[in-house]
Amino acid sequence: MDLRGYTDINLRRKALEKELRVKLEQTGNYSLDVKLASTRNCENMIGATQIPVGVAGPLKIKSSLQEREVFVPLATTEGALVASVNRGCKAITQSGGAAIISKRIGITRAPVFEIKNIEEGEKAIGWIKDNLIEIKKVSEKSSSHLKLLDIKSWMAGRNLFLRFRFDSQDAMGMNMTTIACTNAASLIEQNTKAKLVSISGNVCVDKKPNMLNMIEGRGIPVWADCVLPDEVVANVLKTTPEKFVNVINRKVYLGSILSGSIGANAHAANVLAAIFLATGQDIAHIAEVASVIITGEVVEKGLYVSANLSDLVVGTVGGGTNLSTQKEALDILGVSGGNNGKNSQKLAEIIGASVLAGEISLIASLSVNSLACAHQRLGRGENL
Amino acid sequence: MDLRGYTDINLRRKALEKELRVKLEQTGNYSLDVKLASTRNCENMIGATQIPVGVAGPLKIKSSLQEREVFVPLATTEGALVASVNRGCKAITQSGGAAIISKRIGITRAPVFEIKNIEEGEKAIGWIKDNLIEIKKVSEKSSSHLKLLDIKSWMAGRNLFLRFRFDSQDAMGMNMTTIACTNAASLIEQNTKAKLVSISGNVCVDKKPNMLNMIEGRGIPVWADCVLPDEVVANVLKTTPEKFVNVINRKVYLGSILSGSIGANAHAANVLAAIFLATGQDIAHIAEVASVIITGEVVEKGLYVSANLSDLVVGTVGGGTNLSTQKEALDILGVSGGNNGKNSQKLAEIIGASVLAGEISLIASLSVNSLACAHQRLGRGENL
Amino acid sequence: MDLRGYTDINLRRKALEKELRVKLEQTGNYSLDVKLASTRNCENMIGATQIPVGVAGPLKIKSSLQEREVFVPLATTEGALVASVNRGCKAITQSGGAAIISKRIGITRAPVFEIKNIEEGEKAIGWIKDNLIEIKKVSEKSSSHLKLLDIKSWMAGRNLFLRFRFDSQDAMGMNMTTIACTNAASLIEQNTKAKLVSISGNVCVDKKPNMLNMIEGRGIPVWADCVLPDEVVANVLKTTPEKFVNVINRKVYLGSILSGSIGANAHAANVLAAIFLATGQDIAHIAEVASVIITGEVVEKGLYVSANLSDLVVGTVGGGTNLSTQKEALDILGVSGGNNGKNSQKLAEIIGASVLAGEISLIASLSVNSLACAHQRLGRGENL
Amino acid sequence: MDLRGYTDINLRRKALEKELRVKLEQTGNYSLDVKLASTRNCENMIGATQIPVGVAGPLKIKSSLQEREVFVPLATTEGALVASVNRGCKAITQSGGAAIISKRIGITRAPVFEIKNIEEGEKAIGWIKDNLIEIKKVSEKSSSHLKLLDIKSWMAGRNLFLRFRFDSQDAMGMNMTTIACTNAASLIEQNTKAKLVSISGNVCVDKKPNMLNMIEGRGIPVWADCVLPDEVVANVLKTTPEKFVNVINRKVYLGSILSGSIGANAHAANVLAAIFLATGQDIAHIAEVASVIITGEVVEKGLYVSANLSDLVVGTVGGGTNLSTQKEALDILGVSGGNNGKNSQKLAEIIGASVLAGEISLIASLSVNSLACAHQRLGRGENL
Repeated sequence: MDLRGYTDINLRRKALEKELRVKLEQTGNYSLDVKLASTRNCENMIGATQIPVGVAGPLKIKSSLQEREVFVPLATTEGALVASVNRGCKAITQSGGAAIISKRIGITRAPVFEIKNIEEGEKAIGWIKDNLIEIKKVSEKSSSHLKLLDIKSWMAGRNLFLRFRFDSQDAMGMNMTTIACTNAASLIEQNTKAKLVSISGNVCVDKKPNMLNMIEGRGIPVWADCVLPDEVVANVLKTTPEKFVNVINRKVYLGSILSGSIGANAHAANVLAAIFLATGQDIAHIAEVASVIITGEVVEKGLYVSANLSDLVVGTVGGGTNLSTQKEALDILGVSGGNNGKNSQKLAEIIGASVLAGEISLIASLSVNSLACAHQRLGRGENL
Repeated sequence: MDLRGYTDINLRRKALEKELRVKLEQTGNYSLDVKLASTRNCENMIGATQIPVGVAGPLKIKSSLQEREVFVPLATTEGALVASVNRGCKAITQSGGAAIISKRIGITRAPVFEIKNIEEGEKAIGWIKDNLIEIKKVSEKSSSHLKLLDIKSWMAGRNLFLRFRFDSQDAMGMNMTTIACTNAASLIEQNTKAKLVSISGNVCVDKKPNMLNMIEGRGIPVWADCVLPDEVVANVLKTTPEKFVNVINRKVYLGSILSGSIGANAHAANVLAAIFLATGQDIAHIAEVASVIITGEVVEKGLYVSANLSDLVVGTVGGGTNLSTQKEALDILGVSGGNNGKNSQKLAEIIGASVLAGEISLIASLSVNSLACAHQRLGRGENL
Repeated sequence: MDLRGYTDINLRRKALEKELRVKLEQTGNYSLDVKLASTRNCENMIGATQIPVGVAGPLKIKSSLQEREVFVPLATTEGALVASVNRGCKAITQSGGAAIISKRIGITRAPVFEIKNIEEGEKAIGWIKDNLIEIKKVSEKSSSHLKLLDIKSWMAGRNLFLRFRFDSQDAMGMNMTTIACTNAASLIEQNTKAKLVSISGNVCVDKKPNMLNMIEGRGIPVWADCVLPDEVVANVLKTTPEKFVNVINRKVYLGSILSGSIGANAHAANVLAAIFLATGQDIAHIAEVASVIITGEVVEKGLYVSANLSDLVVGTVGGGTNLSTQKEALDILGVSGGNNGKNSQKLAEIIGASVLAGEISLIASLSVNSLACAHQRLGRGENL
Repeated sequence: MDLRGYTDINLRRKALEKELRVKLEQTGNYSLDVKLASTRNCENMIGATQIPVGVAGPLKIKSSLQEREVFVPLATTEGALVASVNRGCKAITQSGGAAIISKRIGITRAPVFEIKNIEEGEKAIGWIKDNLIEIKKVSEKSSSHLKLLDIKSWMAGRNLFLRFRFDSQDAMGMNMTTIACTNAASLIEQNTKAKLVSISGNVCVDKKPNMLNMIEGRGIPVWADCVLPDEVVANVLKTTPEKFVNVINRKVYLGSILSGSIGANAHAANVLAAIFLATGQDIAHIAEVASVIITGEVVEKGLYVSANLSDLVVGTVGGGTNLSTQKEALDILGVSGGNNGKNSQKLAEIIGASVLAGEISLIASLSVNSLACAHQRLGRGENL
């Protein structure tokens, strides 16, 4: 059967049911805007997948951009995750909230060019440096929401990688930077001997685990921290600062070093995946944004915990954020739509604080060996 | 407000609507089995997120386990992705299909123990070697679907990491191995001087980007390859083998080396995320499974392309696979439910072939610089 | 001028002096066995470089193989290094010595073969598994000192990497394994469709920084540890366990994670380079053996410190160990010549303990900020 | 025995001979300046190690700084190495020479500070940005040869890493930057709440394999390339461009990706170690500088090969360069002593070209499977 022969979603799904002799009733049971989804988000559409959404919070956040309590929507099928984040939120909020710092490093795209040799590569780099204003103009013409921040170059033999860095306001921005780079690449090809090979040269680095983004930053890096007083550690987390830090040192630091991991955390990917999914982010980015570094220390009368997300690519307009349930999740956080980059930055900060909450709760569980227990209760159908 | 004060999902959502002054109508519009989802998959549930599902195919697969054409369900909000995978499927299927090899390496969990010193660590390792049968018995008692395959150890100072490897049949198996390791850890604590610090020591490695899983393998590693004849490359992919391989060498190989990436591919995470989401897998695993290696070579009268997924953790029972839309997606692939490990292995093979399809199409696009163009058309609402 | 036109070292050096109008008097001032060196160690020889050799110790070592005090020869031009290692030795020896565990993992070589596709690759792997005894026989025929331990395979597309692991007794063994693998590769080519591309496929991994050797081990991995009582920490190291561990956590663990380092240590490469050079090891191996993991913890009444060298390739016969000054350095350690693998293993253990000594001293210096001071005194010509 | 009880080198050596009942005659046979060596380079000195030095060349180099033919001194005990580099030099020089580009990125040192929390860290970073001129003044006061170029910061929890980057002219510069950073750290401590923990925080990154230096560059990064005409490839290298590139793709690129290597080359560490040793560089730096990327491509009528050394820390004054044989080796290259940074940069360029020569020759050997053969002839005592 030719899936593309069907213009109507329901007819396509029914044809598939017939062809494969399966029932797809639930997949056909959706309320999202079909026209929007089928033209902008998903080709050959046959319906929708439903993912349960839970809410954790309140989570108190303190940054120069926002100081407030939020409820965090999490779309997940992993039993115990929402409960765990919720416990972390409670610990943070009872301790006065998570302090947050965020930076608009920007979204990156790195075309790779073929050059005749390093001499020609050096000349091309020279031309780019001398004509940055012109490149900026050409790059930004495709979107009023895009500002070119800088271009960094790496050369290896006959290969020139140019890493463009853009501010894309409230959009995640990957598609618009691809268009912008395509225009810039044409200009570079016209004025140098460099020949475009691929508009993405894997130095972007988009959707691949890598050290470069961790070192250079990508998107909206976030730092989050808090001090949990001894009594919160005892009452909410059922552990001690010493036990918690023991897990940090042995598992998070040494285990990550031994296994050649990028970053060092307990399960940041879990929380990132759940918020990304709920709020319409691109979940393939989990491959790169999961490189989170968690630290923990015993401090006077309490436990210090921090999360550093050096690579965090999110948006509040475009992509999946236009879909109805996803937009509602952004509404829960008060960051739906465009707001001169402030909404995406607020979202990034909330994500950073939520990852911190998730780490606090899981590492606490691990430190008293209650994980298997929690999964047995929660993942198998008991109440919290 | 206290989210946990509500036992009914709709009441909880409505309370949240009132508290935050937002509308969550679409989130409340779901058909999944609330009892199941709210007790096993998601705490503090308020409804469901809807993600569009498209289908790519037919995709011909040839392995010792299955030889057939499948349609691949992809849940995504990224415009152009399904179309791209679909084109890759067409190229593969017109070329006679993708050859697949898969291996049941098994799911891993690595507790970290505190030891007094390396001498005590060595003694503990010795005891474990001598008592593997007993450890196996204790590990397997919590589930009839779990077989302990082996235990590998790493020691660093006062830290002993034991990496347990299990066959978990058709379950992804992370939760059941956590329980099994908890039981085994008790036994080890009783018989050696090693003290359990954390049931996960980050050498598992679960949901973190890492080299160890790539080197040792995890879950059900898959190799997929095919030779695309020149005419398929020209007609379906609109490029040439030479142009394609030029992108492989410069972007996939060199770009990945330069950026310190784990693995080397174009966008494996995209396809993995979309199938994982559609079929009820744990999308946080994208952090590790995205470390895919793609190769491409010009061969006689054609283009050879391969994908190697050395870390692929999937299941067809448990977790999100029990939910109705996810189960329907597994039905589309004919791999729903338990089947002595064959269903999860078939699913892994289909995922490997789908990743290959996605890579073939995107790298072809990049090689003729048509990516920006495709995104402009598809992501902005035009027809295919 | 044609350097190879000269058969006599002194004539060649003099011709060079004349050609370049330089004086090479000191280079011509050597006592090593010219015939040996110029035919086995160095082509186009013009003389010798002199490197100062210092000695650190006594260093007490306790393993199942040896329990004794040694003096460690260090060839170095870096002022303060010998003094620093010496101080570490003093701290260790006053604390009762370093406990050592070592394992003969063996030397590895990994040819890469071209295969038609993954199916042919799988067949070749199958043939190898079925004919391991024959491969072993062919591999071992070139040297009576070589035992094939196992072969591990990785496949990526049309590339098959076979990692041969050998016990090479007291030789470092890289050259003899190259010959052995060349013979084995011929056998494999004759019986499968795999075609040898390169006798080294970079999965060996020889002389390149890499994660694989750290995970799998290479050569003779060593673990070394000790507990330094508070008074030794105070009197010899002029610091406290708490300050020491503060540097471990922030610099050694977190700094290494942040910078994408392989391993986690302070300056293991310094000590490794100095012993390797003094004892005739191949100093290019520093690229891989430097991936050492150091741990440190405050324990009851003292400081626990450990070193783990998972990749340590050394020998006491062959290569540079035949040269006279190098042989004398091995004599200082009592490990010169062949001894059924025991000498190379003893040497590895001494190296592990020396690295531990070097780390203890430098990290102690750093913890009280006396490094600049020490370099000012020692590197600039003052007495100790 | 107490090694430090002896003020005279020969007495110390003799005492050791007596104590250990060994003969150290050759170690006592040296001509280097004992006063210099024993006070600036090596404590507890007992003599010197002799390493054979060979010469490869002529090697033609073309950069904006120098265009000339050089002979390259190589100190090594690895039979076949000099012969191999020599063959590579011949291939390059017959092809018109190696083009070289080099950049003075500068030497780096990264102290780690303890901060109360991320807010205090951010304040400290702010103060540093606002007072860069003052920090520069304080940093540069300890040496007239040192210029502070910039400071880059990374923060993780209560840890602030500041990476100082300096131009150190013709000195490798590690010691002088340590002193400079110690002074700067005092200033920062006086003006912020940051407390110095360690003057090196492992983000430097000094003498450890790491991704950060590869991405950011360190020392004097060098790019070298050349096109070898088909006839040179055939006559000098005994291979074809196609066979050569086959090894590049399968071994250098894919093998390095699979093994989690940093960089991608065949044996850059060999050549680096031999030149470093001959010219008085710090050979412990091999741990980091070995992360070289080699590329190779078939081009019209020839073979293109390149080397990129992104991290290359060298000097022509200070450290081991003051010793007599090492100084003579620098004289052979015409780069001995200080020359406003030009000598160290020339040396770096020569090293880059030599690494290229070494790679060309070895990869050519591998491509026709003649490595075992060469080692059998050369390493075992036959003539070239």
